[in-house]
Amino acid sequence: MAQNIYDQDDFFAGYSALRRSREGLAGAPEWPSLQAMLPPLRGRRVVDLGCGFGWFCRWAQQEGAASVLGLDLSEKMLARARAEGGGARYERADLETLVLPEGAFDLAYSSLAVHYVADFPRLARTVAASLAAGGRFVFSMEHPLYTAPTAPGWVEHEGRRVWPLDAYLAEGERRTDWLAQGVLKHHRSIATVVNALLAAGLRLARLVEWGPDAAQIAAQPEWAAERDRPPFLLVAADRPGPGSA
Amino acid sequence: MAQNIYDQDDFFAGYSALRRSREGLAGAPEWPSLQAMLPPLRGRRVVDLGCGFGWFCRWAQQEGAASVLGLDLSEKMLARARAEGGGARYERADLETLVLPEGAFDLAYSSLAVHYVADFPRLARTVAASLAAGGRFVFSMEHPLYTAPTAPGWVEHEGRRVWPLDAYLAEGERRTDWLAQGVLKHHRSIATVVNALLAAGLRLARLVEWGPDAAQIAAQPEWAAERDRPPFLLVAADRPGPGSA
Repeated sequence: MAQNIYDQDDFFAGYSALRRSREGLAGAPEWPSLQAMLPPLRGRRVVDLGCGFGWFCRWAQQEGAASVLGLDLSEKMLARARAEGGGARYERADLETLVLPEGAFDLAYSSLAVHYVADFPRLARTVAASLAAGGRFVFSMEHPLYTAPTAPGWVEHEGRRVWPLDAYLAEGERRTDWLAQGVLKHHRSIATVVNALLAAGLRLARLVEWGPDAAQIAAQPEWAAERDRPPFLLVAADRPGPGSA
Repeated sequence: MAQNIYDQDDFFAGYSALRRSREGLAGAPEWPSLQAMLPPLRGRRVVDLGCGFGWFCRWAQQEGAASVLGLDLSEKMLARARAEGGGARYERADLETLVLPEGAFDLAYSSLAVHYVADFPRLARTVAASLAAGGRFVFSMEHPLYTAPTAPGWVEHEGRRVWPLDAYLAEGERRTDWLAQGVLKHHRSIATVVNALLAAGLRLARLVEWGPDAAQIAAQPEWAAERDRPPFLLVAADRPGPGSA
């Protein structure tokens, strides 16, 4: 079973205070880029892997999705999501051992959750099988450049701010202190993520190494460094349809 | 027109002395990984973009390719390739303004050349159109982590050797002193490379962020750092065939 850090009091308190937790999608700077990778949701069946407080599930309902299923490991987050209402169904699930009905969804969505999963190839196969022909998997994750280093954090070198990259190809566990001590993440390279999707029978549709744009940096000057080392990787991959060439 | 650094005396002398120039494919540590991405060549039509001394072209001929066309900007390298003989045809071409016949090749191959090209989307479209249905484009390039930094080169920070990453999302020209002064390369992110291939109608088949394996490091201990920051990106992408689902 995956580490359930979100139900730990200190982490949950810290996470709840984040801008993306308080403001939802509008508080997540990468949301416009991720949104641009989504298909139209009207009449579609949607599953959200790691739904948190349910911000995306509520948005998908408002967009006219036929059904929305939010899955999360955290009881505290599910309780909050259910309390908000909105028509989505919420269930507890561990992405490490996830079982989904086959061909049941048109969109599988996941925001900043898959870097907590040790067995990504298994998850990719599970998601691929759960998609109907022509369905899409859209997800964000911490960028491998963000998770790779032995000591992640900007440093000064000869008057310049640099990201001290090492261990990029050393895939596996990373423990960091973010909101709580000893948060467990799993580092893997971009190639490993992409090849796992391809091996699962999905077709890569778009890759985004996300950094803030000029307008976002003007509004939040401290974000400029994120263009030196992108914090997020966004991915869209499709399950081929019967008539696709 | 692209910078023709290979015909500059100091660069050509330095390049000719490299292990991969003297020993050919066997002298290139990434070759086994690149070779694993190739389709069987027997009876296939092959084009090599940036063929250099013709090592790959001669190998493709030996593998039974129906035809092999080697293209390079460097007159000196073409002269050497022609002198080696072997049945391949060699022509001068600038990858920046390349024109190829449509549907004429089963494999387009390129080793460590596309990072010299300013307009990669144009090259991707040209290559895609030159492939027959079911054909494949296999290429290697300097990894974006290698080309990105303002000051590329390992540094010591708090007792550890790190790669001083910055400017990853700042795509564009990079001037470095490698074999000669002011060698012009073009930095672009992995996502930009992949999306250009997809936009050209190709389907991503495999991505490799190459680093030496344990046996290679045992033989060449100084290569260990290359696993901290992979030096090469290897890509395979296919032109969909008429019957492909």
